[in-house]
Amino acid sequence: MMGKYVFGVDVGGTTVKLGLFDIEGNLLDKWEIPTRKENGGELILADTAESIKAKIAEKDILKKDVVGVGLGAPGPIDGEGTVYGAVNLGWGTFSIRDTLAELLELPVKAGNDANVAALGEMWKGGGQGCKNLIAVTLGTGVGGGIIVNGEILTGAVGAGGEIGHMHVEDNETERCGCGNTGCLEEYASATGIVRLAARALHSCEEPSVLRDVPEEKLSAKKVFDAVKDGDGLAVKIAEQFGEYLGKGLGVVASIINPEIIVIGGGVSKAGKILFEYISPYFYKTVFRGSSNVKFALATLGNDAGIYGAARLVLE
Amino acid sequence: MMGKYVFGVDVGGTTVKLGLFDIEGNLLDKWEIPTRKENGGELILADTAESIKAKIAEKDILKKDVVGVGLGAPGPIDGEGTVYGAVNLGWGTFSIRDTLAELLELPVKAGNDANVAALGEMWKGGGQGCKNLIAVTLGTGVGGGIIVNGEILTGAVGAGGEIGHMHVEDNETERCGCGNTGCLEEYASATGIVRLAARALHSCEEPSVLRDVPEEKLSAKKVFDAVKDGDGLAVKIAEQFGEYLGKGLGVVASIINPEIIVIGGGVSKAGKILFEYISPYFYKTVFRGSSNVKFALATLGNDAGIYGAARLVLE
Repeated sequence: MMGKYVFGVDVGGTTVKLGLFDIEGNLLDKWEIPTRKENGGELILADTAESIKAKIAEKDILKKDVVGVGLGAPGPIDGEGTVYGAVNLGWGTFSIRDTLAELLELPVKAGNDANVAALGEMWKGGGQGCKNLIAVTLGTGVGGGIIVNGEILTGAVGAGGEIGHMHVEDNETERCGCGNTGCLEEYASATGIVRLAARALHSCEEPSVLRDVPEEKLSAKKVFDAVKDGDGLAVKIAEQFGEYLGKGLGVVASIINPEIIVIGGGVSKAGKILFEYISPYFYKTVFRGSSNVKFALATLGNDAGIYGAARLVLE
Repeated sequence: MMGKYVFGVDVGGTTVKLGLFDIEGNLLDKWEIPTRKENGGELILADTAESIKAKIAEKDILKKDVVGVGLGAPGPIDGEGTVYGAVNLGWGTFSIRDTLAELLELPVKAGNDANVAALGEMWKGGGQGCKNLIAVTLGTGVGGGIIVNGEILTGAVGAGGEIGHMHVEDNETERCGCGNTGCLEEYASATGIVRLAARALHSCEEPSVLRDVPEEKLSAKKVFDAVKDGDGLAVKIAEQFGEYLGKGLGVVASIINPEIIVIGGGVSKAGKILFEYISPYFYKTVFRGSSNVKFALATLGNDAGIYGAARLVLE
C-alpha cells in the first residue's frame, strides 16, 4: 500500500458522514454534511467530492498519499460499485464508483451501507480478528451484512445479506416495508418490538408497567427497561423477539458458518441482556457444525459505516 | 496456468471417484477405486495417490504438466484443506491437503463434497456462466453448496452451506441425523418425502395409488410418478415438500442473492415438475431484490464432485 490516508463516506438520508483515516484504521478526523436529495440526489456525490477536496487542502495532504475513497449508501450496490436505485436518496441506477472517481481523480469503491458497516465492525469493532461474520443492525428496520473470508457477501445484484427480509412467520397479516409479509424485520426491529408490545398489551389483561405508557410512546427501550425491572409481560415480549431473532440467526449461521454474530443498532443499547433472549433459540436450532458461533455487541455505533467504507478501499 | 492436466477426486463412503481433466474442463478419463475405511480410513488417501500415479504413468503424462489434484469428501473441510472429522470415512481431524500433497508431490486442494459439487455445477453443469449460485442435492439427505463470487462459501470451520440443516419446522418430534429437530432435510430429502407420504397415508382415508404400495417400498420416485398421474394425495405430499423447500430456499436466496439455484440428487430425476411445487412458495417469500433468481436442474449427476474438485485447483 503506497498511500497514507483513506476516506470513508457513509451516505444517509439526512447527512453524509465522512471520516479521514490512516491506513492502519485510526480515525484522524470526522465530520458531516447535509444530504441534498433534490433533483434525484444528483448533488450528493458532488457535495461529497467537494468536502473531501476541502479536507485534503485543509490538512495539507498530498493527493498521492490518498489511497482512495470508500462509500456506503442505502440501496443494492454490486461489487463494481453500481447502485440499482436508492429510494431514500432519490438515486436511480448508475455507477457510484465511476462518478465519484471522476470527480475526485482518486480510486473509489462503494457498497451497501449495512454491508459496509459489517465490514467496519470486523475491522475495528465488535468482530475484530474474525474473517467470517454476520452483522445485524436492529434499528427502525433490521439491516444485515455478511462477511465471508474477509470480504462482503455482495450477491449477484448487491442484495446479499438481507437478513431483515428473511421470511420467518407464515401467520402475519401486516405487510413489511419490502412488500412481503412475515419478514424478520417485522419482529426484531425497534418498530417490530413496539408492534409485538402493542399486540401483547391488547391480547391479555396481565398487569404491566408498559400499560402506563401511552401507546405512541411505546419503544424498544421502554420494553427492555421493563424487562430489566422484572415486568412479566415485558419478559414475554422479549421472549417473542428472542425466538424470532434467535431462530432466524440460527438459519443464517447454519448457511454462513461464521465465527461471530455482531448485534448493533438502537435496540442493542439494551446491552447483553438481548443475548439471554436470543441465545437459547439460536443454539437450539443452529446446525451443530456452527454451534461454536459467538455473539458480541457492535462497538462502533454510527461510525461503523465510515470505518467499513474506508476498509473497502484497503481490501 | 502452466500445466495441461488436473485431477478431480470425489471420496464417498463406498467408492472414490477419480477424473482426469484438461484445464478447459474436458473430462478425459474417469474411474473408481473402493473406499477402504479400515483403521480410521488411513488407506484412503494412499490408495488415491497410487491410483493417480498409475494413471499418470498409463497416459504417459509428464508430471510437470499436472496443475494439481482437487478432492471433495463428506465432512467439514476448511479453506486450508483441513478436515474436522468425516464420520462416514472414519477420519478424524487432519490436513487432507498436506497429506495428499506429500504423497503425490503435487499441489492439492480439498473441500466439502457438497460444496465442491456446487462448484462443478457452476463450472460445467446447470449453473454455467453464473458466479453466485446455490446448489441443493436432494438425495438420502439434503446437501447444500453455495458459490459466492465464483468461490465456495466454506465458512469458519468448513460448515458453510449446510442448507439441509436449516431449521424450518418447530412442531417436529422426530430427530434429524444431525441431532436437531425440524431440519429441511427431514422434509425435502428422498427419505423426507417418504416420511411425508407415510404420514399423509396414515392421517386420512383419501384414496391414492400410493396405498397399493407396501410401505417399505414407498419412494420419492413413486410419489412423483403418482403426482404426474394426477393422484390427489400425492399432489398434497408434493405441496408439503414444495412449501418447505420453496420457503427454505427463499430464505437462503434472500441472504445470498444468487443468480441461480441448481437442484440435483435422486429426487431431481422427477424433473422440472419439482419447480411447479417449489416456485410459488419461493417467489412469494423471497426478498424482492433476489426475486429474479432462476431455477435449473443439475446436469452433471454423480460427476459433479470430480468436476468441482478439478475446478478447485484451477481457482
